[in-house]
Amino acid sequence: MTETLRADGRTPQQTRPVTIERGWSAQAEGSALISFGSTKVLCTASFTPGVPRWLTGKGTGWVTAEYSMLPRSTNERMQRESIKGKVGGRTHEISRLIGRSLRAVIDTKALGENTIVIDCDVLQADGGTRTASITGAYVALVDALEWARERGFIAKKAKPLTDSVAAISVGIVGGVPLSDLAYVEDSRAETDMNVVVTGSGDFVEVQGTAEGAPFNRAELDALLDLALVSTTELADLQRAALAEARRP
Amino acid sequence: MTETLRADGRTPQQTRPVTIERGWSAQAEGSALISFGSTKVLCTASFTPGVPRWLTGKGTGWVTAEYSMLPRSTNERMQRESIKGKVGGRTHEISRLIGRSLRAVIDTKALGENTIVIDCDVLQADGGTRTASITGAYVALVDALEWARERGFIAKKAKPLTDSVAAISVGIVGGVPLSDLAYVEDSRAETDMNVVVTGSGDFVEVQGTAEGAPFNRAELDALLDLALVSTTELADLQRAALAEARRP
Amino acid sequence: MTETLRADGRTPQQTRPVTIERGWSAQAEGSALISFGSTKVLCTASFTPGVPRWLTGKGTGWVTAEYSMLPRSTNERMQRESIKGKVGGRTHEISRLIGRSLRAVIDTKALGENTIVIDCDVLQADGGTRTASITGAYVALVDALEWARERGFIAKKAKPLTDSVAAISVGIVGGVPLSDLAYVEDSRAETDMNVVVTGSGDFVEVQGTAEGAPFNRAELDALLDLALVSTTELADLQRAALAEARRP
Amino acid sequence: MTETLRADGRTPQQTRPVTIERGWSAQAEGSALISFGSTKVLCTASFTPGVPRWLTGKGTGWVTAEYSMLPRSTNERMQRESIKGKVGGRTHEISRLIGRSLRAVIDTKALGENTIVIDCDVLQADGGTRTASITGAYVALVDALEWARERGFIAKKAKPLTDSVAAISVGIVGGVPLSDLAYVEDSRAETDMNVVVTGSGDFVEVQGTAEGAPFNRAELDALLDLALVSTTELADLQRAALAEARRP
Amino acid sequence: MTETLRADGRTPQQTRPVTIERGWSAQAEGSALISFGSTKVLCTASFTPGVPRWLTGKGTGWVTAEYSMLPRSTNERMQRESIKGKVGGRTHEISRLIGRSLRAVIDTKALGENTIVIDCDVLQADGGTRTASITGAYVALVDALEWARERGFIAKKAKPLTDSVAAISVGIVGGVPLSDLAYVEDSRAETDMNVVVTGSGDFVEVQGTAEGAPFNRAELDALLDLALVSTTELADLQRAALAEARRP
Amino acid sequence: MTETLRADGRTPQQTRPVTIERGWSAQAEGSALISFGSTKVLCTASFTPGVPRWLTGKGTGWVTAEYSMLPRSTNERMQRESIKGKVGGRTHEISRLIGRSLRAVIDTKALGENTIVIDCDVLQADGGTRTASITGAYVALVDALEWARERGFIAKKAKPLTDSVAAISVGIVGGVPLSDLAYVEDSRAETDMNVVVTGSGDFVEVQGTAEGAPFNRAELDALLDLALVSTTELADLQRAALAEARRP
Repeated sequence: MTETLRADGRTPQQTRPVTIERGWSAQAEGSALISFGSTKVLCTASFTPGVPRWLTGKGTGWVTAEYSMLPRSTNERMQRESIKGKVGGRTHEISRLIGRSLRAVIDTKALGENTIVIDCDVLQADGGTRTASITGAYVALVDALEWARERGFIAKKAKPLTDSVAAISVGIVGGVPLSDLAYVEDSRAETDMNVVVTGSGDFVEVQGTAEGAPFNRAELDALLDLALVSTTELADLQRAALAEARRP
Repeated sequence: MTETLRADGRTPQQTRPVTIERGWSAQAEGSALISFGSTKVLCTASFTPGVPRWLTGKGTGWVTAEYSMLPRSTNERMQRESIKGKVGGRTHEISRLIGRSLRAVIDTKALGENTIVIDCDVLQADGGTRTASITGAYVALVDALEWARERGFIAKKAKPLTDSVAAISVGIVGGVPLSDLAYVEDSRAETDMNVVVTGSGDFVEVQGTAEGAPFNRAELDALLDLALVSTTELADLQRAALAEARRP
Repeated sequence: MTETLRADGRTPQQTRPVTIERGWSAQAEGSALISFGSTKVLCTASFTPGVPRWLTGKGTGWVTAEYSMLPRSTNERMQRESIKGKVGGRTHEISRLIGRSLRAVIDTKALGENTIVIDCDVLQADGGTRTASITGAYVALVDALEWARERGFIAKKAKPLTDSVAAISVGIVGGVPLSDLAYVEDSRAETDMNVVVTGSGDFVEVQGTAEGAPFNRAELDALLDLALVSTTELADLQRAALAEARRP
Repeated sequence: MTETLRADGRTPQQTRPVTIERGWSAQAEGSALISFGSTKVLCTASFTPGVPRWLTGKGTGWVTAEYSMLPRSTNERMQRESIKGKVGGRTHEISRLIGRSLRAVIDTKALGENTIVIDCDVLQADGGTRTASITGAYVALVDALEWARERGFIAKKAKPLTDSVAAISVGIVGGVPLSDLAYVEDSRAETDMNVVVTGSGDFVEVQGTAEGAPFNRAELDALLDLALVSTTELADLQRAALAEARRP
Repeated sequence: MTETLRADGRTPQQTRPVTIERGWSAQAEGSALISFGSTKVLCTASFTPGVPRWLTGKGTGWVTAEYSMLPRSTNERMQRESIKGKVGGRTHEISRLIGRSLRAVIDTKALGENTIVIDCDVLQADGGTRTASITGAYVALVDALEWARERGFIAKKAKPLTDSVAAISVGIVGGVPLSDLAYVEDSRAETDMNVVVTGSGDFVEVQGTAEGAPFNRAELDALLDLALVSTTELADLQRAALAEARRP
Repeated sequence: MTETLRADGRTPQQTRPVTIERGWSAQAEGSALISFGSTKVLCTASFTPGVPRWLTGKGTGWVTAEYSMLPRSTNERMQRESIKGKVGGRTHEISRLIGRSLRAVIDTKALGENTIVIDCDVLQADGGTRTASITGAYVALVDALEWARERGFIAKKAKPLTDSVAAISVGIVGGVPLSDLAYVEDSRAETDMNVVVTGSGDFVEVQGTAEGAPFNRAELDALLDLALVSTTELADLQRAALAEARRP
């Protein structure tokens, strides 16, 4: 019986408890501290008027992202990338994924010549840090855009945001498709897939990897089904977080 | 009519002419110069007895990969990453993808405590360099394994290779799903997907990205269909290249 | 009248509200999230049996520290040091200060051949991040030592801890000596002094810097007086935090 | 008898078979794949209007070069300099040599404010890679200049090229002066000399190094004699390659 | 008896023989080779009209400093920081200290939009290199300012220099407060303090560190007393060096 | 008339005044401060028993060299390579040249498994720094070898030194071959040649570069003639310096 499969008692479809603490940072234009169970990511969105030189005068804005893990966010301490003197491949890959995912719901023309830098810093890691980052960063992004609109950096009628976006990690563990893998599940997964989905239910990214045996079309379909259910739930949670009054 | 869509006259399903020049390098244990139209990648496989220290004594081997582009493989010259002093995010991401793809068809126990380093150096780039790299690297890998078996580094009866592996880039351009995107197509694609498939037709990696608008399930399915046809053709070409006598 | 001097209504001697959330991290052997007003630092202590090679066989342990600021902990976003590819002078200086301060209350012989790495990551910055780091790191250190003792890495009777340690930033602003400078005060200070003091009231570090005009002996004495009062209060808060039961 | 000296049957004066595949690259403004026996170097010349900022407004152009070896161009795989994060001394030295050698036959006034970057990437190495690079780069350079002239970046009557340039490696092995050392010869050479010579027979660079015993004036003279014969042959080969029609 | 304490026969208060060879460098605008016993530091001051971009147009100048040790200035050879590819924490810390110390006696408004870079290169190290650097750098700075005034970069009536500045290392060794610690004393010191003092006797920096046991207020006071006597002597030596005619 | 050619009144053959201050450093096993006119280089030789790991057990020693310029050794301040984070091509090239030149007079078998690191730090630069470095380093090397022999690291009867070695910069300026180019001459030279010669008068390195027009065989011969006269004089000066008693 699959009910007994998961160490924390969840059903295959069930995500961990997700909380979104909007406006966590007193400094950033937008921010959210998001938790998926023990996974905690601090997402900030920094708004600056103007764009990098290579974009100047084109009338479009720029959204980019950086991801990083605190050295002791993990079970064993990792060396800092600042100390190593270089950013590792995994960090690069995830930063790029977060940036692409958010740009997918941004109309850069409507954003105007403004820059938003998203920072996702993992304070505690227990699987799913990249998908939690995307989901939390969206909330920070919305608040940074609102901040900019209130100060006139973005026109009143402009609609830089075209949709919402959320992400979930799904995978096959012991032959069973599961949603929102915790670290112990992720490390045993035969197939691991990160799926980024808009509020309208379309795909922004599908990244499936066979960690053990290659996977077939039926397995791929089962994972996509799971992902679409979970990202719908996450979109609801994002909407709820944004419905509250912003922290002053 | 979609026949008129592609600048080089191909049908949507058709790949560019693919050639695999096996044993191109006189130095490496295995090698292949692979072309997909104007895209040319030199793939070498370097075999060394022994494994990195962190694997020693575990009885398993190691396969890893590095990807790089010559500075003038592209239309405009790019700065060398050695001069910049760091490897960029895209390079890291592709190197990791190639490594994972090849490891998916390797039984590291059967490989024994031996290391194979794959180098994929793009001599000329016209789209699809990462998927050409994987497809060519497989041929180099087979020859390096054979080289090692002949010299007794791998036991006669050991079967380190569990399947073949090939990859294709597919995407939606102007609403039409196309296989093997050339650079001009790739830069206009709404959705871009790299698919890595074993000789048996199972998935090793599925990486789909919405470059423009998000994509729906039907589009995803159409792309996967295209990819499976093309990777079956590539598997045949790999088999044909390996059927010839090795260069002495 | 000095009562009106400080923007947040504090008297010259008064520190901001200080909270110490012990055991914040579920991963680290010891941890504390410390706040001095809006300044928030996550301090973790990572315990590992064994010492770096250059200490092996000498029968002594090793305690070291690393300090870092999240890019948007500050009012304007700072570039990540991992992206720059090097650690800045200020970061180095503070990391070294934290390490020396904690080693001053550690008997490395009693610690045995074990290593403790302290990480102080500033989540939000409003002045006094280095002194908050030292004060919080002490609490994390105590818990990591207790963790190690419970698991037998440190002998039952060994006393690796010789005292407690806390730190405060003091300075002269507009001619008035003030304790626990907030960022707006710090940026206007003529003289800025960081003082690290043991629970017994002895000095571990005294670092006074004339930001504007040089300071005389009387001013130096007034600052030291202020610092000793505040570090006594901090020592009480540390004791109180450690008196509670540890988070399981 | 010296006829029996060389492993590949050459006489002391004889170079290995040299081929120059002009226009190998479909992307670069000029290119040549040059082989000296098993040594193969891909040389490209990238033309860009304009000069680096420090030269702007001086009315002179700029020619520079970068040399690199593919990791498995050699018998044992070498680590990539991009991965190491720095360019080694030998690479720097050879890049500078190639740049100086080509600038010696360029009239930078006649070139105008334009930049040419030469890339020499060693695909396979068997001795003499730096001299092969210079010899091949000259052909690529000529084609890049022609490309620029056809597009009006260089005036019709301007003569940026003052001469041709070629280079050869010579050395004393077992007491016998030899031309065009293969790797096995180079590694046994007592003296090793790289000589860069113009089409008119004048010296651009003479770099002689005693690898074993110091060398006397008579030996130096014998090596220079050999070099002048070989570079004359190479100048003929360059002329022949350039006499063919360019690849469209 | 404390007379017998010091290996070189000095009394606790006595500094080593100090010599200041003003104008040592024929290239720099100001320079001094300073010795404290075997410690020898070459200090140069490089004057350039203009300021870094972030200061342009603010009407103020800039003084900064860099400290470095020759690899064999010490008893055992140290690796060069240029070879390591990064500047260490200690180097950063000392460079910053020297810069702050000199800026404390500079009126940057009176300096105008000009930059002075101080370089302190330790040729031979025997303790007290940072305090020798500050003391020597002041002399170099004065000459660079004079050089600039003579050439009209600084107005005749401007007074960019507000005071002189010198520094000394003091410490407690075997319970006895000592001035100007040589290396053998420094390595045995329980407490080590660097004190930077103006010609008027005010403090610019006080950096006291407990190397062994924490120190109490009485010990702190004794060290400050010692430091003030020594820096008064150093101010006299600086004045004497500057009284001589400059090297042409 | 060539007598009037040189700004400092020298004849074409004449070197600048050369002084060798042997034993300048109190720390290094061997050292010399060498001057060629205003060019001043501090050369140290650091002796360590043992060899790098890759040489261990082969019974041979290792001699290597590092060259560097102080930032204000030149007329305009240069950025430190430690700050840039990488060693430049010119520095690499010269370090390698110095190392090769000294190894040419070392019998590494007779040296035994010992390492000597030569450091050449340019304190003041006025042309010819690389050749001054080689000439001074030889003196430092001799003393380090003697130091090692006295302490038994090198056998009494071993003869690790096979000859002396010195170097000179020669060049053609305004059509006239000159010896020991000062900076103003070097910057105007049409051809520049560095020649390294043993005490017996054989060549170790000949590095000739056409800075302006290519040079012919007669010019090459004239430069070599000049170089051999100057290096003979330098060998005499080295002998004289080494004839004095070593500094204790």
